[in-house]
Amino acid sequence: MISRIGQYTLQLGNAPSIVGFASVVSKKESEGPLCKYFDIIGDDDHFGEETWEKAESRMQKDAVGKALSKAGLTTGDIQYIFAGDLLNQCISSAYGLRDLQIPFVGLYGACSTMAESLSMASIFTAAGACTNAVAVTSSHFCSAERQFRFPLEYGGVRTPTAQWTVTGSGSVVVGSHLNGPYVNMVTIGKIQDMGIKDLNNMGAAMAPAAADTIKCFLEDTGKKPEDFDMILTGDLGLVGSELLVKLLLKDDIDISKKHQDCGLLIYDLEKQDVHAGGSGCGCSGSVLCSYILNNMQNGAINDVLFVATGALMSTTSVQQGESIPGIAHLVYLSNQSL
Amino acid sequence: MISRIGQYTLQLGNAPSIVGFASVVSKKESEGPLCKYFDIIGDDDHFGEETWEKAESRMQKDAVGKALSKAGLTTGDIQYIFAGDLLNQCISSAYGLRDLQIPFVGLYGACSTMAESLSMASIFTAAGACTNAVAVTSSHFCSAERQFRFPLEYGGVRTPTAQWTVTGSGSVVVGSHLNGPYVNMVTIGKIQDMGIKDLNNMGAAMAPAAADTIKCFLEDTGKKPEDFDMILTGDLGLVGSELLVKLLLKDDIDISKKHQDCGLLIYDLEKQDVHAGGSGCGCSGSVLCSYILNNMQNGAINDVLFVATGALMSTTSVQQGESIPGIAHLVYLSNQSL
Repeated sequence: MISRIGQYTLQLGNAPSIVGFASVVSKKESEGPLCKYFDIIGDDDHFGEETWEKAESRMQKDAVGKALSKAGLTTGDIQYIFAGDLLNQCISSAYGLRDLQIPFVGLYGACSTMAESLSMASIFTAAGACTNAVAVTSSHFCSAERQFRFPLEYGGVRTPTAQWTVTGSGSVVVGSHLNGPYVNMVTIGKIQDMGIKDLNNMGAAMAPAAADTIKCFLEDTGKKPEDFDMILTGDLGLVGSELLVKLLLKDDIDISKKHQDCGLLIYDLEKQDVHAGGSGCGCSGSVLCSYILNNMQNGAINDVLFVATGALMSTTSVQQGESIPGIAHLVYLSNQSL
Repeated sequence: MISRIGQYTLQLGNAPSIVGFASVVSKKESEGPLCKYFDIIGDDDHFGEETWEKAESRMQKDAVGKALSKAGLTTGDIQYIFAGDLLNQCISSAYGLRDLQIPFVGLYGACSTMAESLSMASIFTAAGACTNAVAVTSSHFCSAERQFRFPLEYGGVRTPTAQWTVTGSGSVVVGSHLNGPYVNMVTIGKIQDMGIKDLNNMGAAMAPAAADTIKCFLEDTGKKPEDFDMILTGDLGLVGSELLVKLLLKDDIDISKKHQDCGLLIYDLEKQDVHAGGSGCGCSGSVLCSYILNNMQNGAINDVLFVATGALMSTTSVQQGESIPGIAHLVYLSNQSL
């Protein structure tokens, strides 16, 4: 059962639950503060594969496999898999998941994909279209860097506003079960474009989308930031996070005491030379599917607004002088079902 | 109301209807046999824009605008838009649709996107998640050619099995209304990879996916090819269409009398020098949203299985020696609601 609340928010009945989740990261991420929460840590960036792109596919496959085994399920129990990534034509997902033989819904939401895929899996489950569905995404520093910026060998100097693409993957199994955490509500975002053109300042390009989606959700539901333990964005980093708080304050919404950002949680910004923080689909994916869901399961936090943002440009659009459109999707996770 | 039939098929209650549709094509497509069915025909490949990529965005925007006006609706009546395309990071969709301010679900299904987006819009409508949703996709010969193959100036020689990317867009408005055509069932496909590596023979790479999805649908529903006026694939072209019929015959399924392919319908293969036929997201998009839905509306055809196929490789995956995974999603369209 799905019902609409206000203009943009869906309330999900049938209590879609998170029945399994897993994260895969590489060495650099394991040297950050969340190390103990990750399920699989690669010895290097290759995960036993010949290329970085194949390594990224491998991470998705491993994340799904681990999430399924933690849920006590097999691929035969899953009716749909929702997946996407940053690479051209989303090859991490297609090649990583082709062997699973699960009906596949390919998504493109850039770094918002963890929220987008989790939304779709939850909506399908609440609608009775399936009993179990999987959401998965990934990013890889090396495959992203050479696709979007420069060959790694070039050693380009990074600006202070630049973020570091997380090498990681996160996967969630959603099912019609009785135990939480639950996916209670979903707000799908609208594309926002404030005219920002600086490829090295993606946080600023995405912050307006996060602000818009959070505002829509709070208006639709009549809830306040204080009603949540955490309002968690995906990869706004230092610059985008500050901007998000400021943008919402203009509408008298103060999230400063509740806001956290996966891009700021995953690395130690003092020690790890990542400038403005982590980014990439795998940033929000791996943080949600480790630190956050672990702490929801053990009851340390109970109500989380997960708002992953994506920047929808390509190198071609930027070369043609276009600005960077952003999008943000919101998933309201709670240990209490509605 | 959504119910599962067999292992893979969804039956959609609440009769999601096609309440509007529109197609946009360029000059070459208007010189083919379906000319009179298209809504908007560009004077050239630029549609008034500076670049081919921006022209493709423009086509999507125009297709959505026209479909809405034919439905007697405005953007304010639409709760979700489902969109995707072939370009890296799906920029045709993001830039084409950013001004609409409709909650946006980005998809990547390569040339299967018309079926994927129509499936999602119909499932959301049947689930009560919205009253109206839009599905849209596009492709452009020039933007695809220079991204996937060679600069146009190079004048590469094309093999006989090569297909011609359609410059076109198709958009459907789905709603909870009383009149047909209806979207009665949906079968989301699984990725199939038979090891084909020839980028100039995409039809052969995609045919196994179409065969698998059609077979799953027929098994799930107990229906036979004779129950339909048309089994319509997206862009298998000459080679892939022949292969599809042969593959299904191995399972004693004979679709030869009912099968048509959008890639073979849109061009005059004798006169238009397109080798094995049309291809691209815009191929199935523009043919569905013109010739097919027009003929369903006037009752000339009543039951159509629309099966758009996609090839999920990228230039990077091909350069790394990978084969081409295919996918096919099926939408059962009928003038009779279930």
